[in-house]
Amino acid sequence: MNKITILIHCKDQSGIIASVTNFIALNGGNIIYIDQHVDREQNIFFMRLESEFFTESFSTKNFKSSFKENLVEKFGMKWRIYSSELKPKMALFISKYDHCLYDLLGRYNSGELNLEIPFIISNHTDLKPIADSFKIPFYHIPVTKATKDEAENKQLELLEKHQIDFIVLARYMQIVSSKLINKYTNKIINIHHSFLPAFVGAKPYHSAYKRGVKIIGATSHYVTEELDAGPIIEQDVTRVTHTHAIKDLIAKGRDLEKIVLANAVKLHANRKVMVFNNKTIIFS
Amino acid sequence: MNKITILIHCKDQSGIIASVTNFIALNGGNIIYIDQHVDREQNIFFMRLESEFFTESFSTKNFKSSFKENLVEKFGMKWRIYSSELKPKMALFISKYDHCLYDLLGRYNSGELNLEIPFIISNHTDLKPIADSFKIPFYHIPVTKATKDEAENKQLELLEKHQIDFIVLARYMQIVSSKLINKYTNKIINIHHSFLPAFVGAKPYHSAYKRGVKIIGATSHYVTEELDAGPIIEQDVTRVTHTHAIKDLIAKGRDLEKIVLANAVKLHANRKVMVFNNKTIIFS
Amino acid sequence: MNKITILIHCKDQSGIIASVTNFIALNGGNIIYIDQHVDREQNIFFMRLESEFFTESFSTKNFKSSFKENLVEKFGMKWRIYSSELKPKMALFISKYDHCLYDLLGRYNSGELNLEIPFIISNHTDLKPIADSFKIPFYHIPVTKATKDEAENKQLELLEKHQIDFIVLARYMQIVSSKLINKYTNKIINIHHSFLPAFVGAKPYHSAYKRGVKIIGATSHYVTEELDAGPIIEQDVTRVTHTHAIKDLIAKGRDLEKIVLANAVKLHANRKVMVFNNKTIIFS
Amino acid sequence: MNKITILIHCKDQSGIIASVTNFIALNGGNIIYIDQHVDREQNIFFMRLESEFFTESFSTKNFKSSFKENLVEKFGMKWRIYSSELKPKMALFISKYDHCLYDLLGRYNSGELNLEIPFIISNHTDLKPIADSFKIPFYHIPVTKATKDEAENKQLELLEKHQIDFIVLARYMQIVSSKLINKYTNKIINIHHSFLPAFVGAKPYHSAYKRGVKIIGATSHYVTEELDAGPIIEQDVTRVTHTHAIKDLIAKGRDLEKIVLANAVKLHANRKVMVFNNKTIIFS
Repeated sequence: MNKITILIHCKDQSGIIASVTNFIALNGGNIIYIDQHVDREQNIFFMRLESEFFTESFSTKNFKSSFKENLVEKFGMKWRIYSSELKPKMALFISKYDHCLYDLLGRYNSGELNLEIPFIISNHTDLKPIADSFKIPFYHIPVTKATKDEAENKQLELLEKHQIDFIVLARYMQIVSSKLINKYTNKIINIHHSFLPAFVGAKPYHSAYKRGVKIIGATSHYVTEELDAGPIIEQDVTRVTHTHAIKDLIAKGRDLEKIVLANAVKLHANRKVMVFNNKTIIFS
Repeated sequence: MNKITILIHCKDQSGIIASVTNFIALNGGNIIYIDQHVDREQNIFFMRLESEFFTESFSTKNFKSSFKENLVEKFGMKWRIYSSELKPKMALFISKYDHCLYDLLGRYNSGELNLEIPFIISNHTDLKPIADSFKIPFYHIPVTKATKDEAENKQLELLEKHQIDFIVLARYMQIVSSKLINKYTNKIINIHHSFLPAFVGAKPYHSAYKRGVKIIGATSHYVTEELDAGPIIEQDVTRVTHTHAIKDLIAKGRDLEKIVLANAVKLHANRKVMVFNNKTIIFS
Repeated sequence: MNKITILIHCKDQSGIIASVTNFIALNGGNIIYIDQHVDREQNIFFMRLESEFFTESFSTKNFKSSFKENLVEKFGMKWRIYSSELKPKMALFISKYDHCLYDLLGRYNSGELNLEIPFIISNHTDLKPIADSFKIPFYHIPVTKATKDEAENKQLELLEKHQIDFIVLARYMQIVSSKLINKYTNKIINIHHSFLPAFVGAKPYHSAYKRGVKIIGATSHYVTEELDAGPIIEQDVTRVTHTHAIKDLIAKGRDLEKIVLANAVKLHANRKVMVFNNKTIIFS
Repeated sequence: MNKITILIHCKDQSGIIASVTNFIALNGGNIIYIDQHVDREQNIFFMRLESEFFTESFSTKNFKSSFKENLVEKFGMKWRIYSSELKPKMALFISKYDHCLYDLLGRYNSGELNLEIPFIISNHTDLKPIADSFKIPFYHIPVTKATKDEAENKQLELLEKHQIDFIVLARYMQIVSSKLINKYTNKIINIHHSFLPAFVGAKPYHSAYKRGVKIIGATSHYVTEELDAGPIIEQDVTRVTHTHAIKDLIAKGRDLEKIVLANAVKLHANRKVMVFNNKTIIFS
């Protein structure tokens, strides 16, 4: 049995759903999931489908080219088709905070994450023992003003060598440059420790404390050139009171960051996220 | 323009989605919403579709009979098709608590609810002034052990005369009998003041206080013969602490009850709920 | 029996709690509630006490002057003492949105709010029928650029005549001027339809939609000269998805606004809020 | 500087707060935290105090005996006094699930938990590598029907030898017997994977799925002889829909279990929990 996931978007127009579902039926597929969304402001149609094919002769490659020929041009679609056989490859970038790292590796180890982690990159060596204890290759690539360019080239080399599909910044404390962002557009996931767009930038818990908010949050988003302004994948919040000092906000925030980042990683790895107009469509 | 909503369920099998979407395309319809669900344990397929038809000759009646002929028998479907022209008619049953009543009538008055409220029935007269101030006919039908049967006949007469589609028990403090339940299966919505299945029956806030829970809830469900055991439509919860006395739980609970009941009413009125195996499928 | 509530703050120093509790014991009082907070950054001590006095000779006035003489000067306290006999008087300012109005008046009518509402002021007449149905005097004071000053004088006259303690802006769509703010510092409660500090100013739901947030919120705060920047009393949030259009955010937001504003009103009316350094201490 | 935490409860009566705060002042202490609660149904007074003493001559032992002499007998208090120098010792009991273990040890390693973990006990060897990677002694004590008594004696021996203060069952899949419960009353913390009192006993996620709830939860409570009926320390919930299969509930539930158990552990270790009448008072 082959299982594929199809993600498409195009100008909204009559007959897309019927054409696509019909095409899958003609190819012997059984649709096991379909969901669609129309952005009525922009008049854009989005769809996510999962389909199973039981014929032995099925080939994902042939299906893709036939799909392209018969549907993509007709409707002017942007499209992606994934075979469920291939697990996405995720690179982890970290610095000195360990809570998101422990959380993601714990889940990875338990088989909760449908992905592979070929390696971890860090600009510090502090967390190497954790990577070691999970038996994941760890590369120390220090970053200073002078070496930033060189460091990024080393990163890119590793990413390409391992055919990495997406990058997760698990509290990586460096600004990622345009070179990386352009190569991995909507494929670099960051966790920011505030409910964006409140408290953009550094030290959001300090700002939240100063403003006296009663709720703090965390936001996972794709990295774009503008700081903390990329498409939001997932957010969560928790209540705080006047009794919480900054260190308490930081401690409570860690729990949010872990859960929010893990959820964003799962959504991305399961191909449930589409991006349009700096916003995400999250299929269930 | 005509807009219809289709709800179907049947044994899961190949080709349902393609057949239905194709049928709509052939009839000149444009699908604006499609969502489906498969209960893998029971092997049942569920789908909700909204479609627009722009041809002048379109008739819902003809579409229904053609749908039945071409699809219903082929796939063994249970089906419902609604025209968006017809707003569902809702009867409100109340007793002495006014918070859900104020909330629902406030929303109704603001145009938030896509339904009509032909009348309100109460076994007490306390809340008549509220009904009056919203200019909704109010029928006082007292219920005692001796008159229960007679009272229910009066209720049924009113429900039938006004062609009521569904009934909302807005903290109605009487057990509804089988006669009504059988006639309005999955069409009587109750609000229970606990997170079911915890604290079934009377005085759930007292039980919650006694048990020392840190979270209380409210549950809206369809009424079935077994008390508080019907299909759950919506639930919500809020935190409580040891400082909350029973009266505080009741006050906090009122806010939950209002919101949860209103959400359930909206889901039902917008035909977003399907029931199977004593559980609900809630389409977005 | 007399019951009083004491709120104090002063520089943190040794012996405050012992001195105050001892003073109350010497005056024959029984403390039924005590909570304190120390702002360690600013080194300020805050305390809230409730005490009962059973002696017939007890006089709040005498207690106050003795409290002042024995404790206020010694510790350099800012202080407020309330007798539970006097319910605070709240003025409601509204415009055209009715959801917070219905909600507050519904609660008022049910006896849930420990306050009096001597009148409602609006710059429009649309909601007069609601005020009438709840039998609360309604004053129409239109506001235009030309008449703003005159309108505010009329408002002040009414506020003073009725000895209003605090003002609630229940989606009142006018900027309140310095004259009113200075006279009622930390006594004007506003509801803003976003999780501040995100989306300050007009049309926050439109901004939230554009940014693609996954959570929207509402914030109740005291009005200060800087727009939407006053001390936050209460906040709440709810989840949204890409499927929610702006009108859906507005509808979901209404439920937040009602609950958040009502909670802020209750906290203020029950003298559970202290303000310092543009932040609130909220006692339980 | 010495810092102590005092927890007391007794029949509610006049003058307790003044007497205790006065006693501390007389002993040269500065109260930095005070909170109290009165159970009005049972007429019981509860208080938690933190106090700092700067005199060199201060001795916790002398303070305790003086406290006992002057206050305990007078008011009929139950009392506990802790010096902040002594970190509580926690024993971890585990079986095969690793998510709570990873979470607690990650926090422990980061210094988030104010406690010591002298050892881990498991009835299986599966998770030994995790204990090893965190360098915590691991004892494998298998439990079968035949060896249950003997196993428990080994456990007790280890607990006593290491002067363990409290036990955490981090998804330990064995029923703890009366012998242990009586020795560690209100000192054994369990995590149950439902919002108690709903779904007591085995397989709560399966029951939640079957009932079709829209919210699932987790509950941390002290272990008592009656299964899942002990005093609740902390609860949390998350939303689910009809799209979630049992395995999805289990995965979402794991995140709840981790956070809820960690919060309960922190509350207990920081001496913020009092138990009375099978309920908890949780001080902030």
